[in-house]
Amino acid sequence: MPVYQDPAGGVAVDAAALGAWTDALVRRIGTPPDIAADVAGILLASDLRGIASHGTARLPQYVKLVEAGVMDPTARPLKERGKAALARFDARNGWGHHAGRVATEDAIARAKQVGAAISVVRNTNHYGIAGWYAMRIAQDGLVGISLTNTSPLVAPTRARVSMLGTNPIAVAAPAGKFGMLVLDMATSTIPRGRIEVAARRGEGLPIGWAIGPEGTPATTPEAALRGALQPLGGAENSGGYKGYGLALIVELLTGILGDAAFGPNIIGLFSTEGQSNLGQFFMALDPAAVADLPGFEARLEKLLEQLTRAPTIPDAPGPVLYPGQPEAERTARQLRDGIVIDPEHHASLQKLALQYGVAFPEAR
Amino acid sequence: MPVYQDPAGGVAVDAAALGAWTDALVRRIGTPPDIAADVAGILLASDLRGIASHGTARLPQYVKLVEAGVMDPTARPLKERGKAALARFDARNGWGHHAGRVATEDAIARAKQVGAAISVVRNTNHYGIAGWYAMRIAQDGLVGISLTNTSPLVAPTRARVSMLGTNPIAVAAPAGKFGMLVLDMATSTIPRGRIEVAARRGEGLPIGWAIGPEGTPATTPEAALRGALQPLGGAENSGGYKGYGLALIVELLTGILGDAAFGPNIIGLFSTEGQSNLGQFFMALDPAAVADLPGFEARLEKLLEQLTRAPTIPDAPGPVLYPGQPEAERTARQLRDGIVIDPEHHASLQKLALQYGVAFPEAR
Repeated sequence: MPVYQDPAGGVAVDAAALGAWTDALVRRIGTPPDIAADVAGILLASDLRGIASHGTARLPQYVKLVEAGVMDPTARPLKERGKAALARFDARNGWGHHAGRVATEDAIARAKQVGAAISVVRNTNHYGIAGWYAMRIAQDGLVGISLTNTSPLVAPTRARVSMLGTNPIAVAAPAGKFGMLVLDMATSTIPRGRIEVAARRGEGLPIGWAIGPEGTPATTPEAALRGALQPLGGAENSGGYKGYGLALIVELLTGILGDAAFGPNIIGLFSTEGQSNLGQFFMALDPAAVADLPGFEARLEKLLEQLTRAPTIPDAPGPVLYPGQPEAERTARQLRDGIVIDPEHHASLQKLALQYGVAFPEAR
Repeated sequence: MPVYQDPAGGVAVDAAALGAWTDALVRRIGTPPDIAADVAGILLASDLRGIASHGTARLPQYVKLVEAGVMDPTARPLKERGKAALARFDARNGWGHHAGRVATEDAIARAKQVGAAISVVRNTNHYGIAGWYAMRIAQDGLVGISLTNTSPLVAPTRARVSMLGTNPIAVAAPAGKFGMLVLDMATSTIPRGRIEVAARRGEGLPIGWAIGPEGTPATTPEAALRGALQPLGGAENSGGYKGYGLALIVELLTGILGDAAFGPNIIGLFSTEGQSNLGQFFMALDPAAVADLPGFEARLEKLLEQLTRAPTIPDAPGPVLYPGQPEAERTARQLRDGIVIDPEHHASLQKLALQYGVAFPEAR
């Protein structure tokens, strides 16, 4: 729901062309076609939604992991063990996007049988936006939840150093005329990328975003980048222990439950020093098991209608939004007008295109 | 994790005696003995943990609901429909504590069969602390989750009026030598009770807690009590839309999924104007379905050890805590030394004791 603006000096690229190019590049580095289709589809969805930090801008880093032999682009996930409502997959160090899609669809199929089902995945890699998997479940009319642990960037309440990731929580549900409710949020106040943006713009930081290396509030991006992010809620007296608690629960359900790496033991997500061994969690709940489906969606639609019609505060920049609304509007616009990427992002993809001989689409 | 202090001028009452008195009082107003045992046990657990706002201090309000014929103290929950991993109960407008305990234990039994299981409950009432049900599940070695919707006290991001409850999220897991990890948090920055405390103490309010009736930040308790609480994260630029999103997800999984009342349509929790018809959600996940149990608990223990040993910020009031740690320490102390209740709370229970002829225990 932070409403991202188009980047300054951005280049518009046709969405379908960017998707096809991403697919071709991912195949070119040794990924089987069906796996490449998952990766390209999920990266493109992120760009379409305006979450540039989790889309094709990450391709140079994924390519480096494959080039260094740290990630296996051909690996297919293996269902290891479990029961009808809780099963574990080993992603065998392959693309996180593919393992995530497979584990998600397996959870959907089991949820349709028993009402709700979870897949946990270990030995996996960065999977892009957490929201994609929740939305995949909501597309089938179910409620979807997706969680992942990530490398440590957040200092728990009272701690001076990073011990937990920005560990996102994503939840999606079909919402009648509103399309889909999609919450996709880091459990830190803001993502690290937001600090990098502030650094480029020469901005100061508000209290509650980060601490510096000495453990005091970071007022400049430079201090924050040498320090740690703060959990949602900021300091202890403004509820930061709740954001810390939520990050810890995500860790519990991913790394700890999935028998993957966890907390301060996770190496940098795009480090070539070793395998990430992330843990991920996907859950599908079938409202049809307990409610009449039209009733479920009609109730959610009514609630969103009530929320979005609420009277607003004096300085509101617009009406009350529902989670996922700005991203859905951005997707519709960018499907029509092209995806606007910033010049640095554009240059990095053109470099990959040259390096691998896969011609990059012309700007629109 | 807010570390609550003992109330000023408090009275210490023996825990077992307070539990027995509560049980007797709840029976005296027409509750069958097994249901009364659930109510008394859960209210006492809340007092022991130092969450005075959700324990025996609420008895006068529960009694009023029964006296007014609004809540049925004899009602037993009915399992209506569902599948192995997702079932729905109708609490038939009885005690929320009893319906919650029954639905929780039903979810535990099903989770042991299929790996994970959910009970949603509709047509229910205030159930005390959300954490009790999650802890009940963790006592059996499983991961427990408990959610409830509540009457509207929180303004969504950009809204000027209350549209959602403080909708708590509770999660618990067995944690080896640390006993139990217990997160039990409202999705608002602070609970309404904290504003009432500030009013009694004549304190001002920090930004991010509440807005006044005009929709601007409330700097006094008086303005906040005529306005609305803010979701976790406070204003839009400090991440308040995440707390709003979390409150909405709790609503999705309780009122919407459970076919109960939802959002702005819920009447005051202790209003005698009508039935509450709250929705609640209980989930049990069995780590044994996917992991070796000693491994699961050993990993969580290792993570908590790493977290609690992290170097601290300069103004930290103590070491890094894990969720549930202060409440567990408070419980141990109060089991030994008695439960310290404030004079107003003490007087209200003595009044009930006189009214119903159930002698209140002597102060220790």
